Amino acid sequence: MSNLPVSGARLWDSLMEMARIGGTPKGGCNRQTLTELDGAGRALLRRWAEEAGCTLSVDRVGNMALRREGRDPSRPAVAIGSHLDTQPTGGKFDGVLGVLAGLEVLRALHDARIETEAPIVLVNWTNEEGARFSPPMMGSGVAMGLFTEEEVLAKRDPAGAVFGEELRRIGWQGEADPAGLQSLGAYFELHIEQGPLLEREGIPVGVVDRALAQAWFDVTVTGEDFHAGGAMAPRRDALVAASLLVQAVEEIAIAEAGRGTVGRLTLRPDSRNVVPSEAWFSVDFRHGDEAALARMGAALRARAAEVAAARKVRAEVADFWHCPLTPFDPTLVAALETAARGRGLNYQVMPTGIGHDAVYVARRVPTAMIFVPCEGGISHNEAESITPAWAEAGLVVLADAVLATAGRAQPE
Amino acid sequence: MSNLPVSGARLWDSLMEMARIGGTPKGGCNRQTLTELDGAGRALLRRWAEEAGCTLSVDRVGNMALRREGRDPSRPAVAIGSHLDTQPTGGKFDGVLGVLAGLEVLRALHDARIETEAPIVLVNWTNEEGARFSPPMMGSGVAMGLFTEEEVLAKRDPAGAVFGEELRRIGWQGEADPAGLQSLGAYFELHIEQGPLLEREGIPVGVVDRALAQAWFDVTVTGEDFHAGGAMAPRRDALVAASLLVQAVEEIAIAEAGRGTVGRLTLRPDSRNVVPSEAWFSVDFRHGDEAALARMGAALRARAAEVAAARKVRAEVADFWHCPLTPFDPTLVAALETAARGRGLNYQVMPTGIGHDAVYVARRVPTAMIFVPCEGGISHNEAESITPAWAEAGLVVLADAVLATAGRAQPE
Repeated sequence: MSNLPVSGARLWDSLMEMARIGGTPKGGCNRQTLTELDGAGRALLRRWAEEAGCTLSVDRVGNMALRREGRDPSRPAVAIGSHLDTQPTGGKFDGVLGVLAGLEVLRALHDARIETEAPIVLVNWTNEEGARFSPPMMGSGVAMGLFTEEEVLAKRDPAGAVFGEELRRIGWQGEADPAGLQSLGAYFELHIEQGPLLEREGIPVGVVDRALAQAWFDVTVTGEDFHAGGAMAPRRDALVAASLLVQAVEEIAIAEAGRGTVGRLTLRPDSRNVVPSEAWFSVDFRHGDEAALARMGAALRARAAEVAAARKVRAEVADFWHCPLTPFDPTLVAALETAARGRGLNYQVMPTGIGHDAVYVARRVPTAMIFVPCEGGISHNEAESITPAWAEAGLVVLADAVLATAGRAQPE
Repeated sequence: MSNLPVSGARLWDSLMEMARIGGTPKGGCNRQTLTELDGAGRALLRRWAEEAGCTLSVDRVGNMALRREGRDPSRPAVAIGSHLDTQPTGGKFDGVLGVLAGLEVLRALHDARIETEAPIVLVNWTNEEGARFSPPMMGSGVAMGLFTEEEVLAKRDPAGAVFGEELRRIGWQGEADPAGLQSLGAYFELHIEQGPLLEREGIPVGVVDRALAQAWFDVTVTGEDFHAGGAMAPRRDALVAASLLVQAVEEIAIAEAGRGTVGRLTLRPDSRNVVPSEAWFSVDFRHGDEAALARMGAALRARAAEVAAARKVRAEVADFWHCPLTPFDPTLVAALETAARGRGLNYQVMPTGIGHDAVYVARRVPTAMIFVPCEGGISHNEAESITPAWAEAGLVVLADAVLATAGRAQPE
């Protein structure tokens, strides 16, 4: 096992240089997908990667693949990827860290004239954020067969601009088949945690071994509208009943060590002096274990029935969406653990509760992820911040795992 | 004390005839203010009242005053009033019962050739409902000096139509000074309860002795947005905190035997997979005692501070509006009690928690109200329903109290 001599300082400099493209006065970044600025960021990455000896190929939805040939070109490539696009008031690190850390791996291999057995490919996925064109993770979704090219190219942003036209306008529609990326042999993605756990525990590296299963629900509580001047006793207040279920969602999530969120809630008739007759809210449950996730859904239904009986309302819990547990590849997870140990870095094996390109890629390609801390767990925010030391911790683990997986060619 | 020989059957027939103007397939009524249908309803009332010997005067905001002269025209008039306008999906009784019961009193006096000492005036107030032009109770509000004529005449409905222009279009802008109605000597209003208490207790008459004081608040809970995939422990979820305060509003209202309602609640960023960073909601507290109302507000602030500390959020409680306790006139309240006893009707002295023209009138004119039950407490709904017996119970109490207050002229 050899440590690849990557440079944390060069990575940091590149992060800061990339952040100037779309940089905001508050220190964040607005480089939304398929804008001129996205085009400029892509061009800078291309120049940097080509200077490090890579060859660019772009597919029909704009995914960039920067390839460094291996001693054995027939071996499936080991990929590193993430995204350069940002939220409208995004930060400098979400996505960009993963791409530029991959670049630093390629630069270090180039500088040290190290040959790998397998090719190495750096991928910049199109439109991970989903902020301008919804849904998120479009580029990886098309590549892995979750969306069709046609549907993605026809998407419109809120201003009516068409994805395919915008992609051509900025000059980044290529000719490669996106499905070609399904033949990658391995995929690594380094990302900021977007949560506070690593920072709080003082652990520099998270080794991500799976993506949580998700179950989303629509809950509709129906009582009766009633004048706010009327007595309390006869009320069938949909909001008071719903407020008990909002708390139940939190309690259920904590009891099962999962996650539970009510992110939307609307009332009818939504008038200051009318007792609400209807409260609708969303529930987002996540868990690293499908059986526990199923128990959470059952507990929600049971609590809804209890509240309905106690409060003389109807409470309907409807399935909205389910996303299965996505386990990552045990061999690649082990490679990351080995790399962290090899660098003497404390790490924690953890799930991701958040969607990433890696979660889609994992459906077709052996995958693992690395998390590094971010201050206060804040992301999708101009205040998003990491330290150079955290960036370097993630970088070295990535570099060593990639090199180990690709295989260092022995001098002949 | 003499019982006036009113006819419950004639009142009921008139209610059903008036309900055909704007009648809906579901049995309700859509006779919104200043529509052609409102004009038709007004014309029918005018014809009926003139047939009973009354003289019409209309003021500059469309309030109709139908006057039956007394033996002593210099005595301030005893008034009966309510409104003929309805909600878009309103019922046949809200407002209309009070106007047509007043008409029946005038008809009975006319038929029995009874002369009263004081004149009697039946008032149909313009735009009580506030459904088409907001706010409600505009006609009585202008008459009693709470709104200016100019501001009311300039109001626009959601389609952009101007109040004053609509009033002229339907032919119901008169020349009288609305403030002339401040010189009434007494004001009685019969109304459906719009609550379930009388029906539930089996009591046919409510003698309303005051309008509850109201204190409205804006509550803003500020936490931090956070990805729904992130862990539970570090969350500062504005909605979970707000849900505790929604329950506190109910608990406080019950503890003080007042009323408490959260009728509106909105979230930011209002996304299924983001923990809400902000929850805003309205609070409407009402009580028949100002000191108790003040305690309710203080309790809300105390609970907000507790929840803020426990949940690591900010919770700001801002005053939005306060409406003082409006006591009704003790002499008129006593006249209603005497009338109910005289007819052998069980009654309950109770407050109104709901705004009525009477609440504005009470600021300038001695006032009292009568409630009758309505099925299930339902109003502002096409299903609004009362029985002929309930209508008659309210009518006879109104009739006898009006006659006692106006004074029956002794034959010379």
